[in-house]
Amino acid sequence: MKIAPFRKLVSLSDATRIVMENAATLERTEDVRLGLLAGRVLALDVVSPMDVPPFDRSAMDGYAARSEDVAGAGELNPVVLKVAGELFAGDANAVHVGKGEACRVATGAPLPEGADSVIMAEYADEEGALVRVRRAEPMWGNVSRRGADMRAGAAVLRAGTILDPAKVGVLASLGMPSARVLARPRVAVVSSGNEIVEPGAPLGPAQVYNSNSFTLASLVDRSGGTASIVPRIEDTADAVKHAIENASEQGYDAVAISGGSSVGERDLLAGALSAAGGMLFHGVQIKPGKPFLFGKVGRLAVFGIPGYPAACLTVGYLFLGPAVRKMAGLPADRRTVRARLSRRVASRLGRAQILTVKLTDKGAMPVFKESGAITSIAAADGYVVIPEHTELVEAGEEVEVVLF
Amino acid sequence: MKIAPFRKLVSLSDATRIVMENAATLERTEDVRLGLLAGRVLALDVVSPMDVPPFDRSAMDGYAARSEDVAGAGELNPVVLKVAGELFAGDANAVHVGKGEACRVATGAPLPEGADSVIMAEYADEEGALVRVRRAEPMWGNVSRRGADMRAGAAVLRAGTILDPAKVGVLASLGMPSARVLARPRVAVVSSGNEIVEPGAPLGPAQVYNSNSFTLASLVDRSGGTASIVPRIEDTADAVKHAIENASEQGYDAVAISGGSSVGERDLLAGALSAAGGMLFHGVQIKPGKPFLFGKVGRLAVFGIPGYPAACLTVGYLFLGPAVRKMAGLPADRRTVRARLSRRVASRLGRAQILTVKLTDKGAMPVFKESGAITSIAAADGYVVIPEHTELVEAGEEVEVVLF
Repeated sequence: MKIAPFRKLVSLSDATRIVMENAATLERTEDVRLGLLAGRVLALDVVSPMDVPPFDRSAMDGYAARSEDVAGAGELNPVVLKVAGELFAGDANAVHVGKGEACRVATGAPLPEGADSVIMAEYADEEGALVRVRRAEPMWGNVSRRGADMRAGAAVLRAGTILDPAKVGVLASLGMPSARVLARPRVAVVSSGNEIVEPGAPLGPAQVYNSNSFTLASLVDRSGGTASIVPRIEDTADAVKHAIENASEQGYDAVAISGGSSVGERDLLAGALSAAGGMLFHGVQIKPGKPFLFGKVGRLAVFGIPGYPAACLTVGYLFLGPAVRKMAGLPADRRTVRARLSRRVASRLGRAQILTVKLTDKGAMPVFKESGAITSIAAADGYVVIPEHTELVEAGEEVEVVLF
Repeated sequence: MKIAPFRKLVSLSDATRIVMENAATLERTEDVRLGLLAGRVLALDVVSPMDVPPFDRSAMDGYAARSEDVAGAGELNPVVLKVAGELFAGDANAVHVGKGEACRVATGAPLPEGADSVIMAEYADEEGALVRVRRAEPMWGNVSRRGADMRAGAAVLRAGTILDPAKVGVLASLGMPSARVLARPRVAVVSSGNEIVEPGAPLGPAQVYNSNSFTLASLVDRSGGTASIVPRIEDTADAVKHAIENASEQGYDAVAISGGSSVGERDLLAGALSAAGGMLFHGVQIKPGKPFLFGKVGRLAVFGIPGYPAACLTVGYLFLGPAVRKMAGLPADRRTVRARLSRRVASRLGRAQILTVKLTDKGAMPVFKESGAITSIAAADGYVVIPEHTELVEAGEEVEVVLF
């Protein structure tokens, strides 16, 4: 076994910068129908093709009238108007309100011609063909004016906007059955390693179940991407080379290959990526996750992720998730809380320690076991980065916890 | 038009309590396969059926040996061992390491019989059939012990746990191809109103596009539920009655009907719900959203939501979203920031004002236009609740903004 030590590790900040610089927001777009738009990112500015509301309408149940007719109305001096008709929401506007007249209107009904205000039902008493109005209402009082919500020709949503429920509502209000949004980054997720068996199959001696494909795919999906789990590949130079070529040919935006990124004889990814001329770095000053490598083959971003589950997911949270969010046009999602470390933690100089912690009433409690243990992360609420230049964090010291 | 004023409005806090008490976490469960589990809620405790790792394995590339053999090794007094074999990850363990022997091991390889430690490759030089070890390693050094991550029989994940990527990894590591999770609450979303047209169709006079179905469905989906948009119903007593009956018969957990919840003659939902004996309240001391009504018909929760878009979505954020999250077994998702109000805001005593605001460098800027304007919410980052007993909030006063 030939073992080539890492020649030069890059710092956490350099690695982050290189990955993010090489994760460009996609230019590919697609039409998606209204019901599926929530969370997607608009690809184009939306200009309103119409006024919303498209007509003056009543904002209340009550009586539409001329504001000048009711100008002096009050509890002690009501104004009596003739009821000229009735309009519900959806009724075409066929009522004309003349001087001394009113029209019963429901909320959402078009404002009848001639009227310029609506007196709320609470301030009116109808008797026979007449209505006694006990309150004045100024011009356009209780009326939603045409275009008051959105005006025809106005830019109502900008390209890059994330469509939350209200913004989906804007598109619906404009009558748009679909919208053009950024495509989701497509990420091929590959596990390499001869020891790996798919969950559900029996486990032989020296074998372990594939968990990395599922943790990475979950992370990609929740970062705004679409993960495709590719069947496990063998630890051979050809298999790794073909995995990269296939992902590239099939139009994936990124491939995340876990395992095969260390320096052992069978760790072939670095060789394959270097041969393809795409290596940007190999080895980062972090623990766990040191063997992480990253490169670009054409427009395909290649994430070579250590195979040990906790190291794998740490690299996922530090690099893959943020890169996918950027490709998807989504902003960084870095929620942090400050907490006191529950116990003293030693760290090695020259390597940033990614310390997983659980938030308890005793503060941030380290739960990291080892890079191979998935529970090192599954038991945690987030992680603390202990910088390269820090050797010791004392119990009780305040730290910033990045939440998962 | 007969107009019945609301008899007794409930307070925001009472309305919230009643809705949440009547939104029980679902007992219905389903099996979901690994690749789709992220974000779902475990229905049962997961007990590990096996040790993980399932065997003692090497945590490093290097040489497995007996710790007692290398106890005195150092840079100046290396220990020379005979290389008895080689094991990669996935290789069945067929090598025996005797006294004075070592075995080349790759990360993830089973620890060969007889060995109890692994010396990292950096501290060993191989020449011919011998290896010169320049460092001592204590018993179990660089070895991941069988069961160190998870022990057979241990409760590793509790019912109610939300499956994030790492917890999906726990299930995968245990070989589980799927897991039993809580079903997603099924919510039928119905818009009522004769004035409503579906987006994409041409708009006639006095008509507006249906936006409420899409805003509410988006909100339900992102709250852990599954929304089904039901075709628009007419404003008739029969149509409303049938919408509730259909939702109940089809096994929905909730129905959200927008429009038809005010006090006008054609606002028929209150009558239908009262007739079914399920009305819990009608009318809340909030603005916008006052006409909101809520009830229960059998196990179906009925949300009668005002039809005006901003009022509709306000009620969605205050009541429907939190109720769906609770039904789904998800915790409340109330992210808040503190900010200073950019200008003085007057409010009516006796009604909590839900003031939508945009966060700007001048503070929280009110953007509410009117209940009918979807842009009242689409332009906002969140909302401030101005309590029933507050008449005025001064410019510069600090407020809590609940983020959308």
